[in-house]
Amino acid sequence: MSAWKVVLLLVGVQCLHVVALKSQLFTRGDALDYSSRKAVDYKTFYLNQKIDHFGFFENGTFKQRYLVADQHWHQAGGPILFYTGNEGDITWFCNNTGFMWQVAEELGAMLVFAEHRYYGDSMPFGPDSYSDSKHLNYLSSEQALADFAVLIRELKGSWPGARSSAVIAVGGSYGGMLAAWLRMKYPSAVVGALAASAPIWQFPGMVPCGDFHRIVSQDFASSGPNCDVNIRRSWGAIDKIASTGLAWLSGTFSLCAPLKSRPDSVAFKEWLQETWVNLAMVDYPYEASFLQPLPAWPVQAVCRHLGFDSSVSDYQLLQGVSEAARVYYNHTGATACLNTSSTATGSLGFLGWYYQACTEMVMPLCTDGVQDMFEPQAWDFQAFSDECQALFGVRPRASWAETLYGGKDLSAHSNIIFSNGGLDPWSGGGVTRNISDSVVAIVIPQGAHHLDLRYDNERDPPAVRGALVSFGIGGIFSFLSFFNALET
Amino acid sequence: MSAWKVVLLLVGVQCLHVVALKSQLFTRGDALDYSSRKAVDYKTFYLNQKIDHFGFFENGTFKQRYLVADQHWHQAGGPILFYTGNEGDITWFCNNTGFMWQVAEELGAMLVFAEHRYYGDSMPFGPDSYSDSKHLNYLSSEQALADFAVLIRELKGSWPGARSSAVIAVGGSYGGMLAAWLRMKYPSAVVGALAASAPIWQFPGMVPCGDFHRIVSQDFASSGPNCDVNIRRSWGAIDKIASTGLAWLSGTFSLCAPLKSRPDSVAFKEWLQETWVNLAMVDYPYEASFLQPLPAWPVQAVCRHLGFDSSVSDYQLLQGVSEAARVYYNHTGATACLNTSSTATGSLGFLGWYYQACTEMVMPLCTDGVQDMFEPQAWDFQAFSDECQALFGVRPRASWAETLYGGKDLSAHSNIIFSNGGLDPWSGGGVTRNISDSVVAIVIPQGAHHLDLRYDNERDPPAVRGALVSFGIGGIFSFLSFFNALET
Repeated sequence: MSAWKVVLLLVGVQCLHVVALKSQLFTRGDALDYSSRKAVDYKTFYLNQKIDHFGFFENGTFKQRYLVADQHWHQAGGPILFYTGNEGDITWFCNNTGFMWQVAEELGAMLVFAEHRYYGDSMPFGPDSYSDSKHLNYLSSEQALADFAVLIRELKGSWPGARSSAVIAVGGSYGGMLAAWLRMKYPSAVVGALAASAPIWQFPGMVPCGDFHRIVSQDFASSGPNCDVNIRRSWGAIDKIASTGLAWLSGTFSLCAPLKSRPDSVAFKEWLQETWVNLAMVDYPYEASFLQPLPAWPVQAVCRHLGFDSSVSDYQLLQGVSEAARVYYNHTGATACLNTSSTATGSLGFLGWYYQACTEMVMPLCTDGVQDMFEPQAWDFQAFSDECQALFGVRPRASWAETLYGGKDLSAHSNIIFSNGGLDPWSGGGVTRNISDSVVAIVIPQGAHHLDLRYDNERDPPAVRGALVSFGIGGIFSFLSFFNALET
Repeated sequence: MSAWKVVLLLVGVQCLHVVALKSQLFTRGDALDYSSRKAVDYKTFYLNQKIDHFGFFENGTFKQRYLVADQHWHQAGGPILFYTGNEGDITWFCNNTGFMWQVAEELGAMLVFAEHRYYGDSMPFGPDSYSDSKHLNYLSSEQALADFAVLIRELKGSWPGARSSAVIAVGGSYGGMLAAWLRMKYPSAVVGALAASAPIWQFPGMVPCGDFHRIVSQDFASSGPNCDVNIRRSWGAIDKIASTGLAWLSGTFSLCAPLKSRPDSVAFKEWLQETWVNLAMVDYPYEASFLQPLPAWPVQAVCRHLGFDSSVSDYQLLQGVSEAARVYYNHTGATACLNTSSTATGSLGFLGWYYQACTEMVMPLCTDGVQDMFEPQAWDFQAFSDECQALFGVRPRASWAETLYGGKDLSAHSNIIFSNGGLDPWSGGGVTRNISDSVVAIVIPQGAHHLDLRYDNERDPPAVRGALVSFGIGGIFSFLSFFNALET
């Protein structure tokens, strides 16, 4: 095909995927087999990966785990949806990414879920991986992206029929950042990316540090009368009661480990703050079990306990707060006591993520108590850096992520869909406007943290229906099959 | 400006740079100030760089040298031409990249020449940098690209007026590969790249390993009657004479260190082979001093000593070969004896480059004695790997460069000009066909290794005139100033 025809066709294709999306949007309901939505059936594999892709002195290897489901794959031209695993056990992400399972049949796609090194079962130094900063040295997004690129190369070379398959990266949250970055840094490995709730702009100097908690607070403000106001008041109430009534607080909140000192009450407030943040993230319109088992619209459920007017006493207020906390920690009724040392599922690797935050993933967050419902706290990079030094013996590099991934300048990239939930605090650091014809943003106003990666649900608000994004990925796929057709 | 207008304009711009190039081509001669072509006047700076950009355990820094010439820079909108230093002293590249000095005035450009770590004055561990594989661990193209991206960020943040300047990467040979890769991996750092004689496809499985020496041989074949034939014959002649006449060989070639053994004669042949290869690389149409001081069209000068017909004796033949070698090693007449331990300028860091070849820069080369004028030698990765293990304690990773840089799939990239010389053996691994409207290839049939980066010369063949490429970079610049205008 002559060059000018290719040019003309590509110009055309850039408009096509919008059309393709619409048609997919309206046919989607029929195509889905709702009964099979829980059929998560995969095989587990391991690939020998270099511990250090970027140096040759450390020449050791480790086994990276990955999961493959090829039962729906149409070898001839069927794409590969490649989940870029984030900070946790890959089987957990696999089970919480219903979207991929739903579209596999529609697209005739192979699914691959690749585990991120230093999480789950993919430990570069086995049980010693977290022993010290020397062993943690190879925990980084760059090394993880290299693992993914190597794995894709291996799959294409060794999996019968995979060589000509288009690979599309999919991920949510940090996994979404990795999906976008994989396309940006290794565009020959993946033809496009769906980056769901991926705060790639939550780095120093890119967005206001207060946006995150402001969004959390807005969720609470809109989920029940006085809800945010009463949470804002609760901090002072805790301070007052903590001076004499730690036992009362411990009893009222059924804490597993009673508060014993003033510092305990500070930690207690931090735990509560994290609880509200997590609730905003997982404010899904249906019963779900992601960070914790929760009812539908859990923030509304929380706010039902926080509707007090200004006449409420500190004790009454905190009684309400304790009921609210139980919505998050004891929806099943099976929790004997509340554990302030944890706020979410054990499938996430918090220590690993904290190391990443202490090195390259520097994401400034702050509160002012005015635009948000939290106690004012400035972003203090030096204090954070000192904490990292004390904990891991490393200091974060504040500007490295921007240098490495280009910050807000995405103009040179292509074929990335950034989907965002309006309820999700991470949308503050997300890409929420179109950058170009093929780097596009979707905002789902009533969506929480990567709601769109979950199975479709009848309770999804109409505008949220996973179809919106599946349509996006369908669009990317249409887009790319044109490329393939032109090249072959 | 509304989105659709931007879209329309961008479509237009993609055609504009071709026009821009032409107008520049025809005005170029007038704009040049030939008298100032030797005025290489710069200031030297050093930037503290992390020794390891990709890990946090090694938190040390080193001083990266860079040279800046801003005397022609138009701060408001004037671009920055950024030379991505390769395997040698940056002042040497600075002095051998006359093209940048010539176009600086035309473009109102700042020039920056950034030294590559582990070369010249930019030693991560000072005198210990080459002491062992532990200290060499941070010598890689990835680390070098990160240095460049960090330096560009620093320049834009600290150099008055530089923040809004478009930065264009320029480099030749390995520096050209780095220029292209910098645009590919850090597109927000540089708006485009001129990659001169950059063999980014000289990696396993991408091009035939014999192309390189075939091109060398073609140069000799076309530079004088029987020239390639006589070089092909010379290897057997050396073998025959070496069995009894090492002293004769040593004397005839005026070797500084006389040949003493059979292995010496093997090394002697390797030295001669490298000599012919180097000559093909620097077969410039005018007197020049790059790898060595040489006459105009040095391969023709060499071939004048190698025009024998088939009746020549081995002794006569090798006498001619020795005269030919002197063209390369003793053009100035000042060389007392020929030193077989070196074939080129000491400004290049051969040991560093060999380490790079032994790690990620795996470039298969082979000869068959039929399509080329050399003794047959297959590409033997295992033998090469063993040699690397013995020398540096590291083994090369044959497929890493392809995974990292995408191999032959450049379709996702933009704004790169690959220029190639038809006489240059490295053109065999270069990008010699257009990939897209903005990833374009230029082939200069009578050009040697990055001839186009040198000062213009009246002896440049008409088609070679540096203008061809300056026009390319002018095109990129026009292209990008449109972008800038749209964004501001």
